[in-house]
Amino acid sequence: MPDTLTLPSPADFHVHLRAAPQTALLAPHVLAGGMHLAYVMPNLSPPLTLPQHTVAYLAHLRALAPEIDIRGTLFLSPALTPQLIREAAQAGIAGVKSYPRGVTTGSEGGIESYEVYYDVFEAMQQHGLVLNLHGEVPSDASKNISVLTAEATFLRHLVALHARFPRLRIVLEHATTRAAVECVKALGDTVGCTITPHHLDLTVDDWAGRPVNFCKPVAKHPDDREALRDVIRSGHPRFFLGSDSAPHPLAAKLPSAVSHGASALAAHACAAGIYTSPILLPLCATLLESFGALEQLAGYVSTHGRAFYGMPAPQGKDVTLVRRKSTVPMSYVLEQHQHLPQGAPEKCEVVPFWAGRELEWSLEP
Amino acid sequence: MPDTLTLPSPADFHVHLRAAPQTALLAPHVLAGGMHLAYVMPNLSPPLTLPQHTVAYLAHLRALAPEIDIRGTLFLSPALTPQLIREAAQAGIAGVKSYPRGVTTGSEGGIESYEVYYDVFEAMQQHGLVLNLHGEVPSDASKNISVLTAEATFLRHLVALHARFPRLRIVLEHATTRAAVECVKALGDTVGCTITPHHLDLTVDDWAGRPVNFCKPVAKHPDDREALRDVIRSGHPRFFLGSDSAPHPLAAKLPSAVSHGASALAAHACAAGIYTSPILLPLCATLLESFGALEQLAGYVSTHGRAFYGMPAPQGKDVTLVRRKSTVPMSYVLEQHQHLPQGAPEKCEVVPFWAGRELEWSLEP
Repeated sequence: MPDTLTLPSPADFHVHLRAAPQTALLAPHVLAGGMHLAYVMPNLSPPLTLPQHTVAYLAHLRALAPEIDIRGTLFLSPALTPQLIREAAQAGIAGVKSYPRGVTTGSEGGIESYEVYYDVFEAMQQHGLVLNLHGEVPSDASKNISVLTAEATFLRHLVALHARFPRLRIVLEHATTRAAVECVKALGDTVGCTITPHHLDLTVDDWAGRPVNFCKPVAKHPDDREALRDVIRSGHPRFFLGSDSAPHPLAAKLPSAVSHGASALAAHACAAGIYTSPILLPLCATLLESFGALEQLAGYVSTHGRAFYGMPAPQGKDVTLVRRKSTVPMSYVLEQHQHLPQGAPEKCEVVPFWAGRELEWSLEP
Repeated sequence: MPDTLTLPSPADFHVHLRAAPQTALLAPHVLAGGMHLAYVMPNLSPPLTLPQHTVAYLAHLRALAPEIDIRGTLFLSPALTPQLIREAAQAGIAGVKSYPRGVTTGSEGGIESYEVYYDVFEAMQQHGLVLNLHGEVPSDASKNISVLTAEATFLRHLVALHARFPRLRIVLEHATTRAAVECVKALGDTVGCTITPHHLDLTVDDWAGRPVNFCKPVAKHPDDREALRDVIRSGHPRFFLGSDSAPHPLAAKLPSAVSHGASALAAHACAAGIYTSPILLPLCATLLESFGALEQLAGYVSTHGRAFYGMPAPQGKDVTLVRRKSTVPMSYVLEQHQHLPQGAPEKCEVVPFWAGRELEWSLEP
């Protein structure tokens, strides 16, 4: 068993850094978690639908965390055109993210109407932008589709898009099922897949009744988790880290029964999202070692994703982990007096994954 | 569409009335929900493992709700013997409830060791006691068993028990899957099955991130819900109401982030259970009408269960529902000054299923 691990400039290819003022808390956590590159998602409110939105957002983030290579995406919407894709490429924007319910203006059609974006995808293929797919269809009880089957049901869209645009790089984001792993493996080299650390750890039993572990896509059966672990253990080069680190304020995860009473319980749907950013690399090392995949850590957290995206690790930017236990903080707090504007809630508190639990590895100081 | 419905003395064949002081709040709710008979579960703390425990508990409940026909059960444990089954029968105890983790003293063996109770089951068959099965096996990731598959995996035990004790009346409690419905239908007339109203309403999508709808067994796929609705629509005589109404104090369902901070979110597993007792008959009517089964209501809430248990509806005890909307209360509160002992929390507040939502039917005053 090694006592130190040296990783070439780790990269998180799927992370949510939210909007100001939370960015002041969250952006520096990327580096604190051992990552040198953050590929940030565009689902702000309002979403980043135009190149100028993403460019401004990236400038904001880079000012907060200048040590990090921050890469940005566009939110797929009817506002996009081939001309805007060209402009996005010129501005250095790396990809376009598709969300199920954002694909059409209404929710009924959902993911069915990728066809209307074919000219956009054609331009993305031409200009080298990556298509990032949130691979779920909306629930539909009449078709027996729920959060448990939303991903497997989506896969035919991935297959069809890859067949139509074989040179377009596509990433199936945060895969959670054996079906998704098998599907991606069977496709060509332009199709990659991110796997989150929390989906390497959780099954449905862990989020049943436990809001802290609730995220979308939901963690599935133990056999699905085993498929995710298997493909990481195998060192498959098209599977790599995208944390989907997605912080929510404590009150959004757990509404207060004290201040809101019974209605909080009756009405509230806990926010879906798991926060791993500030502990990411030690968490990945701890998890991969737990299922016998520690020697694939460099591929998972750096080289596979960087190769897929064509963003090679810079020289002399290794990160070293040492075998030293550390305890995950119970929460991270953005205090009003530091950054929050007048009128904002007194503080923004986010609870990380594995709060209070022990990690086996630490970043070398 | 009828505007009144007359039901012969409705009966709830699976209800949790908890222990004092909560019983003072909960026991009268059985009648408030339109039920004349309550078949109460023995999983108190400590559980009702001996006939004398159940006898004392029933006396306590009957004093609080003298209008209700309250029937009791024993908790299956190594304390039970054929002699105690005989005494239970003489004391009027109607059944024995088996819980997965109570089957053996440890948790590893789980449900595997029903064999050690064969002499008890033989005595139950002889004395006419019913075996009430919580039909789930413990989760076991190595066997791909989770809360989603725990029931289907259990069914072989039901089949084996029925084959070994064909005259023993067995009830598979709170069935949630198509597999369970098909299994029970295929077995003999001594095997019945309770179906809760909430499982006729919910799927996994409804409890994902929503503690108020979290219960065990968890609600499953839309297709499973359809199988439950189908068998009620069909009027199958061995499927009947057991509400599994299981109140938990608000704080157990939704720990307060205000008073406990981040640790509440990090550590807490929300209590599993849905409270339907005080709205039970109007809820059942509303639900069955919503999926075209209103004409099976009398069978579901009264005659099927009463026939299976040999507890016929008393004459002149009909209950009438009228088509009149009512709103489900946000909560029910047991105030300290009424019943709670010194030192107890200031109040015990429970949030019902469908809190704040509208029911289509009301009890005739």
